[in-house]
Amino acid sequence: MSDTNLSAVLHKKGDLRLEERPIPEPNEGEVQLSMRKIGICGSDVKYWTTGGIGQFVVTHPMLLGHECSGVVSKVGKGVTHLKLGDRVAIEPHNICRKCEFCKSGSYNLCKDVFFLATPPDNGALARYHTHAADFVFKLPDNVSFEEGACVEPLSVGLHGCRRAGVTLGSRVLVCGAGPIGLCAMLSAKALGAAAVCMTDIDSKRLEFARKCGATHTLLVTKDDKPEDLATKVADLIGSAPQHTVECSGAQSSVNLGVLATRSGGTMVVIGHGPDNVSFPVYSVITREITLKGSFRYMNTWPTCLEMMSCGKIDVKPLITHMFSLEETLKAFETAKSGEGVKVIIDCEKKG
Amino acid sequence: MSDTNLSAVLHKKGDLRLEERPIPEPNEGEVQLSMRKIGICGSDVKYWTTGGIGQFVVTHPMLLGHECSGVVSKVGKGVTHLKLGDRVAIEPHNICRKCEFCKSGSYNLCKDVFFLATPPDNGALARYHTHAADFVFKLPDNVSFEEGACVEPLSVGLHGCRRAGVTLGSRVLVCGAGPIGLCAMLSAKALGAAAVCMTDIDSKRLEFARKCGATHTLLVTKDDKPEDLATKVADLIGSAPQHTVECSGAQSSVNLGVLATRSGGTMVVIGHGPDNVSFPVYSVITREITLKGSFRYMNTWPTCLEMMSCGKIDVKPLITHMFSLEETLKAFETAKSGEGVKVIIDCEKKG
Amino acid sequence: MSDTNLSAVLHKKGDLRLEERPIPEPNEGEVQLSMRKIGICGSDVKYWTTGGIGQFVVTHPMLLGHECSGVVSKVGKGVTHLKLGDRVAIEPHNICRKCEFCKSGSYNLCKDVFFLATPPDNGALARYHTHAADFVFKLPDNVSFEEGACVEPLSVGLHGCRRAGVTLGSRVLVCGAGPIGLCAMLSAKALGAAAVCMTDIDSKRLEFARKCGATHTLLVTKDDKPEDLATKVADLIGSAPQHTVECSGAQSSVNLGVLATRSGGTMVVIGHGPDNVSFPVYSVITREITLKGSFRYMNTWPTCLEMMSCGKIDVKPLITHMFSLEETLKAFETAKSGEGVKVIIDCEKKG
Amino acid sequence: MSDTNLSAVLHKKGDLRLEERPIPEPNEGEVQLSMRKIGICGSDVKYWTTGGIGQFVVTHPMLLGHECSGVVSKVGKGVTHLKLGDRVAIEPHNICRKCEFCKSGSYNLCKDVFFLATPPDNGALARYHTHAADFVFKLPDNVSFEEGACVEPLSVGLHGCRRAGVTLGSRVLVCGAGPIGLCAMLSAKALGAAAVCMTDIDSKRLEFARKCGATHTLLVTKDDKPEDLATKVADLIGSAPQHTVECSGAQSSVNLGVLATRSGGTMVVIGHGPDNVSFPVYSVITREITLKGSFRYMNTWPTCLEMMSCGKIDVKPLITHMFSLEETLKAFETAKSGEGVKVIIDCEKKG
Repeated sequence: MSDTNLSAVLHKKGDLRLEERPIPEPNEGEVQLSMRKIGICGSDVKYWTTGGIGQFVVTHPMLLGHECSGVVSKVGKGVTHLKLGDRVAIEPHNICRKCEFCKSGSYNLCKDVFFLATPPDNGALARYHTHAADFVFKLPDNVSFEEGACVEPLSVGLHGCRRAGVTLGSRVLVCGAGPIGLCAMLSAKALGAAAVCMTDIDSKRLEFARKCGATHTLLVTKDDKPEDLATKVADLIGSAPQHTVECSGAQSSVNLGVLATRSGGTMVVIGHGPDNVSFPVYSVITREITLKGSFRYMNTWPTCLEMMSCGKIDVKPLITHMFSLEETLKAFETAKSGEGVKVIIDCEKKG
Repeated sequence: MSDTNLSAVLHKKGDLRLEERPIPEPNEGEVQLSMRKIGICGSDVKYWTTGGIGQFVVTHPMLLGHECSGVVSKVGKGVTHLKLGDRVAIEPHNICRKCEFCKSGSYNLCKDVFFLATPPDNGALARYHTHAADFVFKLPDNVSFEEGACVEPLSVGLHGCRRAGVTLGSRVLVCGAGPIGLCAMLSAKALGAAAVCMTDIDSKRLEFARKCGATHTLLVTKDDKPEDLATKVADLIGSAPQHTVECSGAQSSVNLGVLATRSGGTMVVIGHGPDNVSFPVYSVITREITLKGSFRYMNTWPTCLEMMSCGKIDVKPLITHMFSLEETLKAFETAKSGEGVKVIIDCEKKG
Repeated sequence: MSDTNLSAVLHKKGDLRLEERPIPEPNEGEVQLSMRKIGICGSDVKYWTTGGIGQFVVTHPMLLGHECSGVVSKVGKGVTHLKLGDRVAIEPHNICRKCEFCKSGSYNLCKDVFFLATPPDNGALARYHTHAADFVFKLPDNVSFEEGACVEPLSVGLHGCRRAGVTLGSRVLVCGAGPIGLCAMLSAKALGAAAVCMTDIDSKRLEFARKCGATHTLLVTKDDKPEDLATKVADLIGSAPQHTVECSGAQSSVNLGVLATRSGGTMVVIGHGPDNVSFPVYSVITREITLKGSFRYMNTWPTCLEMMSCGKIDVKPLITHMFSLEETLKAFETAKSGEGVKVIIDCEKKG
Repeated sequence: MSDTNLSAVLHKKGDLRLEERPIPEPNEGEVQLSMRKIGICGSDVKYWTTGGIGQFVVTHPMLLGHECSGVVSKVGKGVTHLKLGDRVAIEPHNICRKCEFCKSGSYNLCKDVFFLATPPDNGALARYHTHAADFVFKLPDNVSFEEGACVEPLSVGLHGCRRAGVTLGSRVLVCGAGPIGLCAMLSAKALGAAAVCMTDIDSKRLEFARKCGATHTLLVTKDDKPEDLATKVADLIGSAPQHTVECSGAQSSVNLGVLATRSGGTMVVIGHGPDNVSFPVYSVITREITLKGSFRYMNTWPTCLEMMSCGKIDVKPLITHMFSLEETLKAFETAKSGEGVKVIIDCEKKG
């Protein structure tokens, strides 16, 4: 094992450094992981470029990275389901396990959560990382480390689709064709959706979305009226969608989503944009629309890995760039530029 | 049987007339009802004072009244569960019975609905009315005609609470202490709520709410910040409510509702106000709030009548005024003044 | 249009005759159908061979056949969504539309149901049949009449899987590899199941099941202990199934199903066998198994047709035999022999 | 604080001894409790009289008692929501917090559970006991220690009624009028049931049930046919119950429950009797009955304490006998005799 722990540490807005940190030792119930592939999330980029997201502000040096896979390099006391050398994907948090949310199966709402790369909690963009073993999942043999790193964004999409109630035969509208939108689309199709229409303001992203499996796409502009777009969506996919998953963060998409969703249907909002948005409450009331927030995920890793393994979900086309840990800054510059979809960093020491 | 059918007909905004209409005969599957008590709804008053609500505009003379009870005076062909003389309450609509909504148990969303006193459909504020027999329910012996008329507003409250998921031990916030808010509060308590806090801008309405069973009340003003009110609600009832039922139609209440509702909880919007409102979507996302519209009701009459009969719900305190059919205009003036809670018209011909 | 209506009429046990009947005219809300393909169900065979199923006994001559497709040949008054010449599949019942079940979305439990080919109600195995238009669904262009006839058995499987809660990543056990078991397996896979293990006492049926898409199969014998089989199922598919769908009607399968299902999971029973069976209630209690009956279907036709059209469900391999209406007896002999899976009768007059 | 820890230890079948044990010290996350009131459960009596229940056999000395309340006497590290002197009720288990059941809100199915007074885990029938602090709940000021001890059996009843889906206006059948049946009845009423019919073979228990709040009772005998009883239940309460909660453990009650439950309704089985029972599967299938096992409870303490505090549930009438810890054997003899309903032991050292 290497005796150094090269880590990507964000000191403050714009100040991302590679530096050596001590190699962490696993406590009871934990494993030490030799990290392999880590995807860059939009939130990583935003912490780097702006120093904060909402109430979460970088005030102390913090490791980035929370979309990750690795290899078990040490096994802490009491851990029985993992052994040295296991290839794994990581659900990037730990929870209190005692609050009303943890005890009722909504652990994503735990207020005492430790979440990787969310201030003040360190991420895992380093050679080594320790993690609660029950949030570490073995990769099936036919699932790569890159795919393992993609379980995190896929989980965001899957959790959103689960909350929306997408099921066999559903017609689904997904607003926003970025990585999360694409993951929501892939999840919706795996859940049995008959049609998934994606919207975006960028025609190249929609073209990419069609390649990844979107059955329909609709290019939108800021001047389009939501009412008109809602009609277009219904025309495109044959009838109004029962489920909408909003992944763009745009107020216009929230409005489109409410108006496009079939009476009695559900619209889920994942995308963060302005803190407050205006929405057509009259339509929500008289057509009994359900509007749900969707935050992170819970109990998604086993399903995602299973679906990747049996081929029902293929995230590989989403991976457009790969860099070494030493090239972290270049990787972040690429992610920031928006030219790729999923930018991955390889944390393994080579040579 | 009387051979005339005195009816309260709204000809246009501000023009409500009592006039004789033919006595309707029941078709197959219908009953003819000798009307007894009819409550005046806020919508009746609004059609009278403004001539329309949203897309529903009074363009032809229309009978008002949809909160009603009566006595079966003729039984149409094929009706077996009702007989002459039965005392009944009326679910004030008929549905297509063939669309996806009717067939999946959400018949309140049927687009081919006939709804009493919603343009262009006539209401029942008259001596006689015919109605689809399966939407006519026998009153238990110990439930009065006045209470029977109140099943309609109670159903609005109950349907909202059902959509909110109110259950044993729930803490509930009800915004707005008008008739619908009071009916939501009564329903929440019957569903087992441990605490129901009501808000209003009128301290007298809150005093009345406490008499009717609200466990807590909070007087609000236009200058209060929703964040502060949310904290006050949690302090008052011990912890944040899992469920909020918005019955005021005020944008400030929608904001209070979202912020006050516990993470993972549900806010239901019943109250019609502005078509669009601004709401804190960031809080909805990160705390996974579910926001649901609630429209009319379905399958509530049997439950409401049962609960009135066994004493778990008492709507009698809500009934503050009673007029004869001949006094309809006076009744509407009283309802408009806001001095009472539920104004009832007695449709029976006396003497 | 032909002026005769050749019909397959079961007069009594063992007495199935082809005879001319009047061509029925459509009432209001109905369509007349020129029948195309009709599948023979196990119940058709049983009425023919035994004269009854449970409380349903053939006491008067009755047309058989309820798995059907056709072409609209006359359109009754008030029907707007269908027109002459439309290719259609038929949901083979009509309902009262007024009872608590019809109004709450469980119309399959309506007690006043008219169900094709269930005494005393006539089936549709004839040249012409009239049907409530809202239970008649247009076939997508790329879905054949044979596939249209298979929507009925597929619906039984889909309804069972829906009741079981099969979803993305589920492991599912399906007991019995007859037509309904195969349809349950196809439905489970379309709903996103990661693994579907089928059991049967006939190795040829299991071989056929694997060709149709079963991921695992397990040959069982009468001497196997359910406990041992439950272990084998878990070993085969990696862990205990969350959902079991019982389609064999065998008491041993009910026991296997309860014991094999994961704690907290759901077992659905579709298959009719003995009226009473013994089951391990201790395991049901301490592991909180949910055991649900599944009866017919509701709101499945649109989903099934959609899934056939987009290729997510392929029922064509199930169709093993085809006969003309004139060959009805031969078709029934074939179905009785058990040599095929789905035997179809072509009702169209040729030449 | 007393320096001894008098404890009621079951050495083997029939051999229950009072002996001194060391006073346990609280670990991190635990509290030490000076025990107050402990109810005797049927399982305590059965371990004493038979030495085992199902797979759980007493092979080593084991403290009895799991229905308990106490006072916090020491606070372990990291515990913040409790302080010295707090009056509390105890949810009598600890869980692994890491398995699929714990993480999905079904922690009652955790296979690594530590459950008080279930071999080999010690109970709390002693002067002192230590417990995971998050399973220790403060008693409201107006809830007594005796009532606090009754939260455990009440939780069994409430969990069963929740699984049954009892809600406002439900008609409910509860089979068996012992302590669990009575707690199910109290829970059903608090959930809003319009009618709760209880059955038993003992008319005195039914008389007691009516005093506690059962709206209807039906005396049953071994010779009654379940079909006839099902009809009687429907006649008694006006129509067939939507929900049945089986608390007797009798095969005849399982059969009655299935046949009595309304089509589409749910029957929950709590009562342990024979490992296997025969049931009318034909009725389960054709009427789509859902049959669910119900095991222990989860997330019930806060609701139960709230309901006791606000008066919606009154368990005090169930408490028929009280003994001191020194009188434990006498208390067990009384419980065994069946003469009382809930026998409570006071663990506090007097004088």
